[in-house]
Amino acid sequence: MKNDKYKTIINSINSKNIVLASQSPRRAQLLKLLGLNFQICPSHVDEDSIQIKDPVSHVLELSRAKAKEVADSLEFGLVIGADTIVVLDGQILGKPADKKEAADMLSRLSGRTHQVYTGFTVLENPGGNDMFDYEVTNVHFRDLYDWEIEGYVNTQNPFDKAGGYGIQDQSAVFADRIDGCFYNVVGFPVTKFYTRLLKMLNY
Amino acid sequence: MKNDKYKTIINSINSKNIVLASQSPRRAQLLKLLGLNFQICPSHVDEDSIQIKDPVSHVLELSRAKAKEVADSLEFGLVIGADTIVVLDGQILGKPADKKEAADMLSRLSGRTHQVYTGFTVLENPGGNDMFDYEVTNVHFRDLYDWEIEGYVNTQNPFDKAGGYGIQDQSAVFADRIDGCFYNVVGFPVTKFYTRLLKMLNY
Repeated sequence: MKNDKYKTIINSINSKNIVLASQSPRRAQLLKLLGLNFQICPSHVDEDSIQIKDPVSHVLELSRAKAKEVADSLEFGLVIGADTIVVLDGQILGKPADKKEAADMLSRLSGRTHQVYTGFTVLENPGGNDMFDYEVTNVHFRDLYDWEIEGYVNTQNPFDKAGGYGIQDQSAVFADRIDGCFYNVVGFPVTKFYTRLLKMLNY
Repeated sequence: MKNDKYKTIINSINSKNIVLASQSPRRAQLLKLLGLNFQICPSHVDEDSIQIKDPVSHVLELSRAKAKEVADSLEFGLVIGADTIVVLDGQILGKPADKKEAADMLSRLSGRTHQVYTGFTVLENPGGNDMFDYEVTNVHFRDLYDWEIEGYVNTQNPFDKAGGYGIQDQSAVFADRIDGCFYNVVGFPVTKFYTRLLKMLNY
C-alpha cells in the first residue's frame, strides 16, 4: 500500500495522547481535519493577566502558559496551547465587553488592514520535546455600513472573539481579502503547526 | 431597534424566492452564513461542453449557463449560478479522473502559486435584474512530500474538485498562504457576491 507512510505517521502521532488546551471549537475542528485524535482540556490561564504589548511575544507567552498549565497535570502526553489576537496599528484588540465596545472596534477595523496573530506551543511529557511558533495574516475589511455593524453587534457573535468578529460567522462578508495563512484567521495556523510538528517528531 | 435595517434588508432579499443552482455543500453553507434562505436546484450543464481557455470568460460563461438553465424553468425567483476553477501557469485544471491524474496535478501545484477563479451570475425572474462578477485568489502550496500526495489521493477527496484538492478537507495543510478573498478558495466569493447583490437590489 503506497499510503502506508501517511497513515503510519498520523497513527504514530495519535499514539502520543494528544491534549488540546483550548476550548475553541474552531481549533478542534481544524486539528480533526488532519486526522488527529485528541482530548480537550481547556486551561484556566487568565488572558487579561498577561500584559505584553508586543504581538509576537504576547501570543507565544500566552500559548506557552496555556500549554504548560495543562502539561503540568499530565504524566504522559503531548499538549497543544494556542492564542490568537487581532492587532490594529500595533495595538492589540481584545474581546469586546459590550455592544458599544464591539461597535467601536468594528468601526475602527472598517476600511482598514489589520493583523491576526496566533502563537502555538507544544509540550511533550515526560520531559522531552518542546516546540513553539507563530503565524501572522493580514486581513482587509471593506468599508462597513453602520447598519451592518449594528446588526452584527446585536448578535452574540462579537463577544467571545478577539477584535469583535469571527470570519466563520455572519461577519464573513466584512473581509474582502487576506494575505497569509488561510486558517490562521479562523484561529489556528494549521499548516505551520503541522509542518513544525512533523519536524519536532523527526518525520 | 437599531438593527431593524439589517433584518429588513435580509428579510426583503429572502422574500425573493432565492434558488441556488449548485449542488456544492460549501456554497450552500456560505450563503446560509449571510442569513439567506434558499432552495437548491442544481443545473445539469455539462461543464466539459464549455471549452473557453480564458479563466475569467470561462467562469462567467459557465456560471451564467448554470443560472440560466434553472431560471428558464422558474416564473418567479432569484437564481444564483457559480463556477470555480483552478489555474496554473494560465492553464485550467479540471477535476482529476483517477488517482494518477490527481497525483500529477498535486505534484504540479507543489511549491507553486496557482489561482482560484470563481464566477457568479444572478438572474431575477420575471425579467428584471441581472448581475455577474468574478473573484480571483492566489494560493501558494508549500513543497509537498510524495507520501502526503499519495495519502491524499487514496481518499475520495480529490475527485469532485477542480485542481484535485479542497482547502476545507485534509489538504488544508497543503496551502501555506493565500492572497485575496478568503472564501473564494472554498468555492464562493461571499463578500463580493453580497456587496454586488446589495447594489443590484438598490440597498
